[in-house]
Amino acid sequence: MFTDFKITEGRPLTVQVKEYLKQWITKGKGRVDQKLPSTRELSTMLNISRNTLVAVYTELEEEGYIYTVRSKGTFVSKVGIASVPSWHVDWQQHLSPVAQAATDLDLMKRDLRGEKGMINFASIAPDEKLFDLANVKRAFLDRMAIEGEILLNYGYAKGYKPLIEYLTGYMETKGVDMDGKDILITNGFTEAYDIILSSLNVNEKHILCENPTHHTAIKISRLQGYDITGIGMEQDGIDIGEMERALTENSFGLAFLTPSYHNPTGIVMSAEKRVEVLRLLAKHHIPLIEDGFNEELRYSGSHMAPLAAFGGDGNSVIYLGSFSKILFPGIRIGWIAADRELIDALVSVKRARNIHTSTLDQAVLYQYFHNGNFEKYLKRAKSEYKHKHELTVECCRKYIPHKRLTGTGGLHLFLELQDGIRSRDILRDCYEQGVVFTAGDVFYTDGQGEGTLRIGFSRVSDEELVHGIQVIGKAVQRRMEENGC
Amino acid sequence: MFTDFKITEGRPLTVQVKEYLKQWITKGKGRVDQKLPSTRELSTMLNISRNTLVAVYTELEEEGYIYTVRSKGTFVSKVGIASVPSWHVDWQQHLSPVAQAATDLDLMKRDLRGEKGMINFASIAPDEKLFDLANVKRAFLDRMAIEGEILLNYGYAKGYKPLIEYLTGYMETKGVDMDGKDILITNGFTEAYDIILSSLNVNEKHILCENPTHHTAIKISRLQGYDITGIGMEQDGIDIGEMERALTENSFGLAFLTPSYHNPTGIVMSAEKRVEVLRLLAKHHIPLIEDGFNEELRYSGSHMAPLAAFGGDGNSVIYLGSFSKILFPGIRIGWIAADRELIDALVSVKRARNIHTSTLDQAVLYQYFHNGNFEKYLKRAKSEYKHKHELTVECCRKYIPHKRLTGTGGLHLFLELQDGIRSRDILRDCYEQGVVFTAGDVFYTDGQGEGTLRIGFSRVSDEELVHGIQVIGKAVQRRMEENGC
Repeated sequence: MFTDFKITEGRPLTVQVKEYLKQWITKGKGRVDQKLPSTRELSTMLNISRNTLVAVYTELEEEGYIYTVRSKGTFVSKVGIASVPSWHVDWQQHLSPVAQAATDLDLMKRDLRGEKGMINFASIAPDEKLFDLANVKRAFLDRMAIEGEILLNYGYAKGYKPLIEYLTGYMETKGVDMDGKDILITNGFTEAYDIILSSLNVNEKHILCENPTHHTAIKISRLQGYDITGIGMEQDGIDIGEMERALTENSFGLAFLTPSYHNPTGIVMSAEKRVEVLRLLAKHHIPLIEDGFNEELRYSGSHMAPLAAFGGDGNSVIYLGSFSKILFPGIRIGWIAADRELIDALVSVKRARNIHTSTLDQAVLYQYFHNGNFEKYLKRAKSEYKHKHELTVECCRKYIPHKRLTGTGGLHLFLELQDGIRSRDILRDCYEQGVVFTAGDVFYTDGQGEGTLRIGFSRVSDEELVHGIQVIGKAVQRRMEENGC
Repeated sequence: MFTDFKITEGRPLTVQVKEYLKQWITKGKGRVDQKLPSTRELSTMLNISRNTLVAVYTELEEEGYIYTVRSKGTFVSKVGIASVPSWHVDWQQHLSPVAQAATDLDLMKRDLRGEKGMINFASIAPDEKLFDLANVKRAFLDRMAIEGEILLNYGYAKGYKPLIEYLTGYMETKGVDMDGKDILITNGFTEAYDIILSSLNVNEKHILCENPTHHTAIKISRLQGYDITGIGMEQDGIDIGEMERALTENSFGLAFLTPSYHNPTGIVMSAEKRVEVLRLLAKHHIPLIEDGFNEELRYSGSHMAPLAAFGGDGNSVIYLGSFSKILFPGIRIGWIAADRELIDALVSVKRARNIHTSTLDQAVLYQYFHNGNFEKYLKRAKSEYKHKHELTVECCRKYIPHKRLTGTGGLHLFLELQDGIRSRDILRDCYEQGVVFTAGDVFYTDGQGEGTLRIGFSRVSDEELVHGIQVIGKAVQRRMEENGC
């Protein structure tokens, strides 16, 4: 007893001793009716004040873990656990197709992961060194002072009202007509997309999207039982001719597009193509899910309105927003801006899934915006990422032989290698030398893309960046030589 | 222009003026090529420093909303939104069965809701006046100081490691053998239950549970396509005889039970019944989902181990925990403690749904526990709720004629009225007098319970409590007189 007891600094001793004794009893280390040392003995043994130990014993007795017999001492209670026949379930045999597919399509399990100390181009998370923690703290304390109790109790499934109002205005500054529309706050893009697919009953469970596209979107679409047809990408966005043919030859229930800093290619769809895309979808009556991914991360050029803005007063575009690739992904906030009646139905689905998104997260983010921190942060982040973007482009051009390089903004570039060079081979070679990136095939809807790779540069230092890309470049050259290119 | 501009205190002026102008432009209030007032003119007009306005114009120009012609002035840019044929989707016609059922079963939409100023017995949320905000702030600042950047960037789908470790120990103090088990952090009980049902592929999509039971569990089970059979409740928990018959006569894939302070009846299952229940489930090889609902809110009596503890080293019990009815429901944290391999599959499902639960929420909660605040808070909350519980029992006995009253802990009581008295009639009568509660029929798996009601007392003052129950009592008596009882 107490041989394995370790005191943690900064935690009340009563709590630590009590927890230790509770576990000692419930884990069966202490026999029922076994006598405990007196508080005096324990006080000497542990060098802890007797008052503390008296408090612990009193509470444990109140909670029924121990009992006292006057002038005899304190003893372990029977904590009420009788043995019953325990049995084993083979859970692997009882996983649903959804759980199996989620596991099979789980990149975190399937792909080579960057280990500590490696140069990691696989991540496209923001660089946490840019986070302005002081402003986040300020936002938290400001909001807690205004309505702390309210933040900590149940909120609304639709979301925290001040944040919804803020985002409504934010969508309007993007040119989106919010009349007759509404907003649902979600736990990031992932939940938004998942809730929409599970809430719709479209004519055909068939989605038209860009090829390649966001791996999570492919995964969720498959888990929800949708077929996917991907349309090739040109330098200024989706191939309109190919899209038109696909729409004529197949029936689709939905389209999913990422017009800005598209993941994984980093391509921005031109204004002309935005108009064309919407004309085609209107002609074939196909609603669009627009992923507003990274559209804040424009490093040059003028404001580009999302497709939802081009849609005018129509209600056929469902816009999904998130700040996760820019600001605080640990705070899980995304949103759906769509037709008011549709949002009303999605609110019930959201409530049935997890009641609502963390009010604390929503409130901190709202106050951070309200305090005017976002604009300043974005300016700083953009200048930092712009530099990294330019450096990555320069290094890729210099060191990695390739057929195509795309990405005019955002946090990543996309490369297509010479024919016959497989990025998974390169990844294995580089991994041994401490460099990791994402093999591009996981982004393809049709099993293609074996010669492609995505290079995320947001969390890599300049020095690592140059070295890492040299390593990739050398591995590509070696393979090319072997192939006799 | 600027006629509807209102300055909000405590927000940077640059941000406010910029947002106003952006919306003015994107909403089409400013024509393309329309000349804007000079910064000097605007400065006089708005009584804002010219420097601020110069900064705003510079940023708007950088972002492509406006353009400057030297010695001519500043003009509105074409923000790239061409009109495309907009069209309307009738979303109501395209809702999936899940979305329709979620709406139909949405109590927040279906039931009479308590309005501000009413006496609200419908809520079983904790009383936010008990929240110790100072400790929550402390926990936030402590954790942010330790690893703020990490909290705000992406975390792990399984959850925040320190919290998982803490909860593992917490489960052990409840007597649960955590060897071979693991924990997944979820967005509350609701997500935990939903993830499990969608991840399992049991032999029969048929759940055995208590009748009545948690409305959310009924809702999610139905949405996931499960049949439900509810077993009647006795004063010490589920009716074992009825359970045995049901198990013999039907095939079940899962059981779902809430042994402590059961929602809605408030009944605690006795230790003897816990053993019996597990024996029966083992005999029929039916895995159990245990809802650890409110088991912390014991006002008297000794420690009662959860069913997961009685299960010993077996892996057939999946335990769902949550502090939401005790502590900070706005922080959406729940957990699943179950077989390690099962948790591993659930982690992929969780990742496909929303990447992970808010790290900020998890970290604040962890630090709050670590700082030893929970034990103190629980003591205070229990003493307050114990008092309210006693007062509610006393008032119900005194004022509301009933056949049965249950609830020995937790935040609510459950009443069964005399035959022929319908609680929905009573609810309507009371609503007019500013009193609202939950009609019990929503908790029944078989459409029964029309004579039952749940009275949540956690957020009602003593004075309101006495008056509110008198109002209910009078309404019941009036109906009884009409019925000639």
